[in-house]
Amino acid sequence: MPKLWDDTIDAHRHAVREATLDATAALVAERGLTGVTMSEIAKRTGMGRATLYKYFPDVETILVAWHERQVGNHLQQLVGIRDRTGRLEDVLEAYALICHAHPTAEPAASLHRAEHVARARQHLVDFLAELLTEADVRDDVPPKELAAYCVHALAAAGAVPSKAAVRRLVAVTLAGLRGQVDR
Amino acid sequence: MPKLWDDTIDAHRHAVREATLDATAALVAERGLTGVTMSEIAKRTGMGRATLYKYFPDVETILVAWHERQVGNHLQQLVGIRDRTGRLEDVLEAYALICHAHPTAEPAASLHRAEHVARARQHLVDFLAELLTEADVRDDVPPKELAAYCVHALAAAGAVPSKAAVRRLVAVTLAGLRGQVDR
Repeated sequence: MPKLWDDTIDAHRHAVREATLDATAALVAERGLTGVTMSEIAKRTGMGRATLYKYFPDVETILVAWHERQVGNHLQQLVGIRDRTGRLEDVLEAYALICHAHPTAEPAASLHRAEHVARARQHLVDFLAELLTEADVRDDVPPKELAAYCVHALAAAGAVPSKAAVRRLVAVTLAGLRGQVDR
Repeated sequence: MPKLWDDTIDAHRHAVREATLDATAALVAERGLTGVTMSEIAKRTGMGRATLYKYFPDVETILVAWHERQVGNHLQQLVGIRDRTGRLEDVLEAYALICHAHPTAEPAASLHRAEHVARARQHLVDFLAELLTEADVRDDVPPKELAAYCVHALAAAGAVPSKAAVRRLVAVTLAGLRGQVDR
């Protein structure tokens, strides 16, 4: 029964991968990106180091896989909010809060140059551009440009001191999307 | 006359440094950041390689010094525009055009983690915050937060296809600074 055997192997691989990334997430939270080692991941998952090396060649590969899962989860969160409330404000605030909780710190910069990040950023811009097409925003600027503006402007949330400041940033960004007030 | 001797040495060091950074600028423009070598810089300046190594230990140090001078020049440009026209719009457009001309490409990312960049970014935020304090903008958000918003939002100019798009980005960013239009 080769089919069933394959399924079992796939499920096993998937389980090992998820357990490895969960252990990595916990280690990153406790010790930061530079505090993660193959030995420690192996210990947390209860695998031997040799087994872990059969699945991942090095700690960088694991960190990239963890980060990719992390970024994918964030995008799913935003999609979920859009589906639930449909409000542009809610999606932008959620994204700003994600940026606030995960400022692009020094060591993360190496992860942020990985290919999956460029891809994820493109997905995010496409997702926002679609949302902006239907939202009550200015129509003198193409939605793709407005979306790129949002992603950049809201990244400032990584450098502000409080959630109140994050909400002010969202208000300022939204005002940009809506258009010029006459003074 | 030790004083005069010191002055001569200082002037010489300064001249060597400037010539080295000019040659580096030309090489970066021609070949990109990864195409710059100690040999080529020495050749362009007419120094021997051994002499160049007396002033700079490696090519990374030269690239950081070149980039620091470059970033400093950009800030000076913005200060000059403020002094000439005094208009927030002109300063923001100039900054957006700088971002458009120098998108943060892959290899530059390593330079962008250098300490001088964090310092320069802080200067830029302080400079804009001061400008915003006097400008006709919303007063429900502290000028420092508005300045951080500007720097992040305008960085999107690195990813837009045309100067027309850069100007649209500046208009959107300015609308954010001015406040919400009632719709």
